[in-house]
Order: sequence, then structure tokens, then C-alpha cells
Amino acid sequence: MAERMREVFQRELIEVQDRLVELSERVTTIMQKASSAFLNSDVQQAEEAIALGEINEEKALALDELVIRILARQSPVARDLRILVSALRISASLERMGALASHIASIARYRFPQSAVPSSLVATFTEMGKLDVALGQKLTELLRNTDLDQARAIQAEDERVDELHRNVFDIVLADSWKENAMFTVDVTLASRYHERFADHVVDISSKVSYLTTGEWSED
Amino acid sequence: MAERMREVFQRELIEVQDRLVELSERVTTIMQKASSAFLNSDVQQAEEAIALGEINEEKALALDELVIRILARQSPVARDLRILVSALRISASLERMGALASHIASIARYRFPQSAVPSSLVATFTEMGKLDVALGQKLTELLRNTDLDQARAIQAEDERVDELHRNVFDIVLADSWKENAMFTVDVTLASRYHERFADHVVDISSKVSYLTTGEWSED
Repeated sequence: MAERMREVFQRELIEVQDRLVELSERVTTIMQKASSAFLNSDVQQAEEAIALGEINEEKALALDELVIRILARQSPVARDLRILVSALRISASLERMGALASHIASIARYRFPQSAVPSSLVATFTEMGKLDVALGQKLTELLRNTDLDQARAIQAEDERVDELHRNVFDIVLADSWKENAMFTVDVTLASRYHERFADHVVDISSKVSYLTTGEWSED
Repeated sequence: MAERMREVFQRELIEVQDRLVELSERVTTIMQKASSAFLNSDVQQAEEAIALGEINEEKALALDELVIRILARQSPVARDLRILVSALRISASLERMGALASHIASIARYRFPQSAVPSSLVATFTEMGKLDVALGQKLTELLRNTDLDQARAIQAEDERVDELHRNVFDIVLADSWKENAMFTVDVTLASRYHERFADHVVDISSKVSYLTTGEWSED
């Protein structure tokens, strides 16, 4: 009987992991569409990103409900308990990442048919968007295989995003910046959303480390 | 024996609630100091807010550890389990609120001895800061007494903050806005931080409702 319970529990843990992977894939797609919408004033992509953001929120809540049902039925302790609590935290971060990417898409939609990105910042935002998408893809892989080396590698990779975020401010605050306040507001917020998206990837990867080591490693 | 366990559990739940109240009090103090630092270029208050933000982060993590220990020892189900999961979520929000308020203080510290708020926006940010502090105080009360009517009242109260947030953009994007990009960046981010702080209060109050009704009410 105890063995049977254990078997069911293992299957449930796999289901939780699969759903985290699925959230991460969706969040990456949202960022991909949002970045493209933002850079190319593509309102169709913006709409798709925003719609996926709403689905993402529902799916994250549904996953939380699943985790709570498992906690109630299985009363796990030690490592198993921590895996499930980590899953709740990771799901909250993935929900937030979807919202942040949607906000980028909303800026593009709001400014359409005008562009939200002045030419002086196209290169910076192109790189930021690519990095965020790449981080999203790595996160998906990491959630799939919980490889510790990969988790550590990701934790160093948001540095370039932080650098680009500071770079946006350098450009905006330089004397050469002649854009109007609308551009300044849009790029300030968009840069912040890109940076927070990468922050969440780093946060999650430190929690994934835990899943394998059995110890919290909040950075 | 079971009765004894139940007694211990009830005491532990009270401990969790007390710590949530304590976090909420600290977060309100951080916002109070941050708002004052931001409006008056008071670098001393800014430092205090930032230091309290760090303490807040540690205390939130310590509370999470306590909740996980209780989950492991007591294996609660149904309502008790949901209370503890809610506590984890509320603690994450309170941690984030401390960080957001600290960011406002950091802007003030960074611009010191200059002001980060142009005169055209002093009234708006004064009201925003006061509203956030008032929401923080109401949240503390709510966590203390888990009164459903109070929870519902709070859920309507971030509307004025959202309105002020839009108002900041109206002022910044008007033809009359003559401030440089530095001011534009600072007020855009500061306004966003104030708005997110209020968002978290609303989020938490919908989770507190649950504590009494036994049903999730994610808005």
C-alpha cells in the first residue's frame, strides 16, 4: 500500500514537472512574440502575446491547485515536500514572466502604428529580446532535466541583460538623446520588463538547483 | 495525542500570522521612509528604507522556512493546508513590496543631492505615497483580524493609485512637460513601483479572504 502510494506520488511529481516545462515553453513563446511585436510594431504578434499571457495565468493557477491537491493527499515530508513548495514558487515566477512579456507586447500595441523603439535603441532591444528568449529556452531545458551545471550556468547569464538594461539608461540620459518623453517612458518600462524577466529565470534556476541537491539555494 | 498535536498546530498558525503582521508593518515603514526620501531628497531616510528592505527579505525567507517545517511536521489537509500555502504566497508578496519600496528609496539616494521629483509631480507622488502607506496599514490590520469586509474594501482601494499612475503618464506625455530624460526615467519607474506596491496589497487581501471563507478568491 505504501509502495503503491509512492508510485502514484512519483507519477504526480512527473505531472507537476511536465506542467512547469509547458509553462516555461509558453512564456518563452510570449517573450518571442512580444519582442518581435515591440521591435517591428507588429500588432498581430502583440495580440497573440497578450492572449497567450492570459492562458499562461490560468495554467499557472491550475498547476497551483494540482500541487495543493497532491500536498493534501500525500502529506509529503523532507525532500518531496520541498520539491512541491519549489514548484509553487516556480509557477508563481513563470506566471509573472508571462505578465512581464505581455506588458512589452502591450506597449507595442498601444503605440501602433507608430514604433515604440527609437532607432538608437533598436540594437539594444534586439539583443535583450534574444537573450530573454534564449534564457527562456534554457530554463525549459533545465526544468526538463534539472541539471545542476546548467542551473549554475544560467545564474551567470542575466549579467548581460543587466548590462543592456543599464545601457538603455546610458543612452536615454546622454546629451545625444533627443527623443520625446513618450519614447523615454516606453523604453524605460520595456527595459525594466526585459530585465525582470531575466531575473525570474535566475531565481527559478536557483530553486531548480534545490530540487536535485535537497538544499535551498536562494542565490 | 491528536488533540495535543492540534493545539501545537494552532499555536504555530498564530505564530505564522504574527510574522505576517510583522512583515506587513515593516513593509509599511519602508514605504513611509522611501516616499519621504523620494519627495524630500532625504538620503538618511533612503538609507534606512534600503536597510529595512534587506531585513525584510531575510525575515520573509525565515517565515517560509517555518511554514515548510510546519507542513512537514503536521501534514495538514483541507483548510489548514490552504492557510499555510496562502501564507507562503502572502510572504512572497510582502517580500516583493519591501523590494519595490526600496527601489523608490534607491532612486532618491542615486539622485541626491538633486531631487528626483520635478515640482509638477510633487502633489501626485505625495498622494501616491500616502495611499500606499495607508494601504500598508490596512493590510497590517487585515492580516491581524482577517475581517472579510475589510478585505473587500481594500480590493477597491488601489483604483486611486492606478489613476494617479496614469496621471503621471498624462503629465509626462503632455506638451507642457519640459523636464529632461533623467526626470522622465525616474518618475516613470517610481510611479510603476508605487502602483505595483498597491497591486500586491490587493492580491494579498484576496488571499486573506480565503483564510476565512475556505475558498480561493483570486480576484
